[in-house]
Amino acid sequence: MRVADLTTPALLVERGALEANLAAMAAALPGSRLRPHVKAHKTTALAARQAAHGHHGFTCATVREVEGMAAAGLGTDLLLANEVLDARRLGAVVDAGARVTVAIDSPETLRAAVDGGVREVLVDVNVGLPRCGIAPERAGALADAARAAGLTVRGVMGYEGHLQMLPDQAERARLTTECTDRLRAAHADVGGEVISGGGTGTHAMNTVCTEIQAGSYALMDTAYTAAGLGFRQSLTVLATVISATGPAGDMPGWAVLDAGLKAFGMDHGNPEVPGGQVWFVADEHLTFATDPLPRPGDRVRVVPAHVDPTVALHERMYLVDGDGPDAEVLDTWPVDLRGW
Amino acid sequence: MRVADLTTPALLVERGALEANLAAMAAALPGSRLRPHVKAHKTTALAARQAAHGHHGFTCATVREVEGMAAAGLGTDLLLANEVLDARRLGAVVDAGARVTVAIDSPETLRAAVDGGVREVLVDVNVGLPRCGIAPERAGALADAARAAGLTVRGVMGYEGHLQMLPDQAERARLTTECTDRLRAAHADVGGEVISGGGTGTHAMNTVCTEIQAGSYALMDTAYTAAGLGFRQSLTVLATVISATGPAGDMPGWAVLDAGLKAFGMDHGNPEVPGGQVWFVADEHLTFATDPLPRPGDRVRVVPAHVDPTVALHERMYLVDGDGPDAEVLDTWPVDLRGW
Repeated sequence: MRVADLTTPALLVERGALEANLAAMAAALPGSRLRPHVKAHKTTALAARQAAHGHHGFTCATVREVEGMAAAGLGTDLLLANEVLDARRLGAVVDAGARVTVAIDSPETLRAAVDGGVREVLVDVNVGLPRCGIAPERAGALADAARAAGLTVRGVMGYEGHLQMLPDQAERARLTTECTDRLRAAHADVGGEVISGGGTGTHAMNTVCTEIQAGSYALMDTAYTAAGLGFRQSLTVLATVISATGPAGDMPGWAVLDAGLKAFGMDHGNPEVPGGQVWFVADEHLTFATDPLPRPGDRVRVVPAHVDPTVALHERMYLVDGDGPDAEVLDTWPVDLRGW
Repeated sequence: MRVADLTTPALLVERGALEANLAAMAAALPGSRLRPHVKAHKTTALAARQAAHGHHGFTCATVREVEGMAAAGLGTDLLLANEVLDARRLGAVVDAGARVTVAIDSPETLRAAVDGGVREVLVDVNVGLPRCGIAPERAGALADAARAAGLTVRGVMGYEGHLQMLPDQAERARLTTECTDRLRAAHADVGGEVISGGGTGTHAMNTVCTEIQAGSYALMDTAYTAAGLGFRQSLTVLATVISATGPAGDMPGWAVLDAGLKAFGMDHGNPEVPGGQVWFVADEHLTFATDPLPRPGDRVRVVPAHVDPTVALHERMYLVDGDGPDAEVLDTWPVDLRGW
């Protein structure tokens, strides 16, 4: 099958760029130094490629991601780096033989882990992003309570998500150190082997964490590319030109693609059409100005602004060989970790 | 089953509000005066409720929506109000006994209809939104070409999408008339019984169209509510508080929900948490300020900013009776028209 045969919109992953990204990250953070985050691709077939590059522990954001990874035989060491109030489905995954660790940041999430049958936890620490995570100075007490309740506390996690895309690398490094100082202090009180955190944007400068939870590096997006991290854009959305209107008076020509709000995560703004200027995106349309004007039936690879919510809108991704309109489709990967 | 038993995030549809919306629209635009747009809910079970209110023609935005509606026995008169370059799957739906009409705006989309085995078309006219649609003065020639190619031209369509949410109702009405003047002129050249267009925001003022393609009125969102149309918010996303941090120093308290960018269409901005102030939304998190602070495990119904891409992120919606935490779940409706 060729790219030209695909129904559009279709999520494409270019093999060369993907493998270059996986190899570059595995060289920078080999083996257990990287705990790839599956939320960025939600695809067990892609996680299997990450495992082939030497990473056998994974990070998840949802219970469904944990279930799906375990069912795909990738359950060696799964961290749900998020709080849950009902951990019974996680306990079932543990009972089936996978290793599952869950984040806790409160007495309620501690209790949920116990009640759900999860036996290993990390204490989630607020390192500066106002989201989940306990205050660093209270982390030790929560760890003590967890151990008293019979749980194994493997260590701490803390995510400096607000720093991932700071364009100034020196500033990103300085602020990352402020965050990891907080995490290190909490770890001194909590104990355990694991200090987990970081992401694609801080993977090279977060030297405190024993493992980095990066995910976006594999597929990338325009937002992360702007941060200048050296990874290649491997993910695009293939779309078909369905309408084209020539210039008239002061109005330039424009064309319309058959991919819109239901094909692109929009929280980081519009996707990019190479060589075109995106005007706006509607449910199943993207209008862009371009010269020369394409013809209806022409196809375009559009670059998403934010990889994670884009992937979540698609049932499958196609692994393709090269950037051309006649590129071979090497494989079809179900985006099998969607939903909750 | 009760709302309290649901795994979160979960899409809820409150029956009373939904039925009030369906009844109000059916009173305003009875029977064939409304051609409900299924892109706003992507759910054949909800379309069946619209049919029960007397509307038997439907509008679709994708080939998959047409296929799914026909498969659900709702294929009396399906309009794909969008251009397609490969209509073979539509032809198969026609061959299986459904009525399918497709929009054309170019020689290429005309040819695709013929080649795909679709026999009925509307000429899509650009009434002012720079997207699909042929210039009004060229619509007649395209209709002639379509008839010469053996197609039945049922009439014209034109969508004033850029006007749907104008807050000033008088201005919305004035500009709608400008658009429908263009559509009427094109119709004079094209002929046929059908003049199709409009949406929830212009349904009451678009008096030229013989049928209105409204969709959002059934479920609604914060953007359409701001336009003051009188329909009730029937759609919410049920989420669980997974973390809560009390005020400290200058920092107010905040809480975090387990619903984020993968549960809400974000092109219209953040969703709304009743009684809270949304700070930011991440992949699986929504951080909001609120006083008093909820406890982890509390549940909240969040109101999406844009209904269509929100629905597209969910596998199912739950029909519920009332707004309370212990409301009964009356039915589970698969969001079965997702994808392409």
